[in-house]
Amino acid sequence: MPTALTSWADGPAESAIVAFVERVTTPGGSDFVEPADRVAVFDNDGTLWCEKPMPIQLDFIIQRLADLAAADPVLRTRQPWQAAGEHDFAWFGAAMVEHYRGDDTNLTLLMNAVTAAFDTLSVEDYQTRVLEFFAHAAHPTLHRPYRGCGYRPMVELLGYLGDRGFTTYIASGGDRDFMRPIAGTLYGVPPERIIGSAVGLTYRDRGEDSDLVYKAAMDFFDEGPEKPIRIWSRIGRRPILAVGNSNGDLPMLSYTSAQHRPTLPILVAHDDTEREFAYTAGAEEVLARAQRLGWTMVSMKNDWLDIFAPA
Amino acid sequence: MPTALTSWADGPAESAIVAFVERVTTPGGSDFVEPADRVAVFDNDGTLWCEKPMPIQLDFIIQRLADLAAADPVLRTRQPWQAAGEHDFAWFGAAMVEHYRGDDTNLTLLMNAVTAAFDTLSVEDYQTRVLEFFAHAAHPTLHRPYRGCGYRPMVELLGYLGDRGFTTYIASGGDRDFMRPIAGTLYGVPPERIIGSAVGLTYRDRGEDSDLVYKAAMDFFDEGPEKPIRIWSRIGRRPILAVGNSNGDLPMLSYTSAQHRPTLPILVAHDDTEREFAYTAGAEEVLARAQRLGWTMVSMKNDWLDIFAPA
Repeated sequence: MPTALTSWADGPAESAIVAFVERVTTPGGSDFVEPADRVAVFDNDGTLWCEKPMPIQLDFIIQRLADLAAADPVLRTRQPWQAAGEHDFAWFGAAMVEHYRGDDTNLTLLMNAVTAAFDTLSVEDYQTRVLEFFAHAAHPTLHRPYRGCGYRPMVELLGYLGDRGFTTYIASGGDRDFMRPIAGTLYGVPPERIIGSAVGLTYRDRGEDSDLVYKAAMDFFDEGPEKPIRIWSRIGRRPILAVGNSNGDLPMLSYTSAQHRPTLPILVAHDDTEREFAYTAGAEEVLARAQRLGWTMVSMKNDWLDIFAPA
Repeated sequence: MPTALTSWADGPAESAIVAFVERVTTPGGSDFVEPADRVAVFDNDGTLWCEKPMPIQLDFIIQRLADLAAADPVLRTRQPWQAAGEHDFAWFGAAMVEHYRGDDTNLTLLMNAVTAAFDTLSVEDYQTRVLEFFAHAAHPTLHRPYRGCGYRPMVELLGYLGDRGFTTYIASGGDRDFMRPIAGTLYGVPPERIIGSAVGLTYRDRGEDSDLVYKAAMDFFDEGPEKPIRIWSRIGRRPILAVGNSNGDLPMLSYTSAQHRPTLPILVAHDDTEREFAYTAGAEEVLARAQRLGWTMVSMKNDWLDIFAPA
């Protein structure tokens, strides 16, 4: 993993990061923070890797639902299996738009289908499926495999912080166990430092043998106000650095920022139509809060020399 | 923290531990395990510290309920506040016995009172109360403060494993946030490696300020089949070493033991009337399973030269 900020342009974002890290790591300084308390949390979708035109996990899910549709004629005529089988991505996009407008009908159909699709699968078998997906699946427009869709400057930042005694965690709205098998390779972040949404688990004791299998129900969604809750539950410390890109990260950023010691809340702005995607939908509130409180803004267009590592 | 097994008698338990650790840490050996996968999990009550005549956390709770009873005449005549105010420990013991017999009436009263007693308290304020408790509270019969009730051989084992590249976690049925503030001092285990039962949390955003406060409801009890679930949720790896002492640890021990690689499930037997307590109640099933599968047994009487560090 690279550990120098070589993909960062000289500018206010890089300066703010370097200044903050020096401030909290200089022994004897008034803002010195013990290594054990140098906790940094990173959102994943849209912060560490590309989330457009759809979250990578959604592609994984659609492929699984399409497989189920192919094997079962009854499912093939019902949503969301039909949309998955026919690669009707618009159906999934519409379900999300309806959700933001307050209508969860299709999102509920989808979530029920998703948890049913992995019901009674062991955590190890799920891990295998995730690894198979990342071995082959590619981004639909960026001409690179999904495993190459991590943002190079962010991978550098994770390494830079790790080198300076920080412990980095991923605090994602995505499924914890979807990220775990590949976060080591992509980001150098091990499974015990992945926080995310969780599907319920059942412990099966079969005498000499025992394992853990997924339930057909969510345990919790790690989004919005749930993020600081899950960060505390997992770490038991309040982060001093947090990076996000959407309204779902506002509570995590605010929880980090609201302390009587130096903190660094960072907001990534998607403003690079050419090299990635430009969008602010779903980030309106957090952009306003960041501006009001003077949080550090990262412009992908201006602050990042490269967005991805060479293919 | 001590890191040599100096309080352990020469004998089968110590030999089994040393042999296992050498086996999985010898580079080039066929049973070598990478440091990242050297995960060891420890139950707390009755495994790392004394749980008789009552769990230490119960004493903390009773003191809190007694404070509430002292401040409120109405509560003073109702259970469990009345029992707490009158130091009627038998009432609490009976609630547990009734629970094991299938009657949860009084345990439910108690649990509701407990979560109500910390409702809307911030995680930081709770931490302060826990530290105040441990600064003064003492064991009722052992003539030592509660903070001196950790088992010396276990503290050594935690250090011994840490020195050899293991990552140690506490996987307790007790409240996660009750152990976190003192597990560093007592065991050298930091907050992010404490797994335990969890009270629900609420995130409060108050504009520039934000914090986490407890709800008057449990999130989950980390006991029995929930232990392997919470171990996976937190760590994302299957432990190769586990230590417990009661039926509530059976699933965790079994989950550790049921693998196609060397593992070390350890069961602590409370058989020392003179220096600690002798009891098998609540451990019948796990004792039978340990015997049947040949798990490593630790006799507190025979395998431990000291039980506690000098007062």
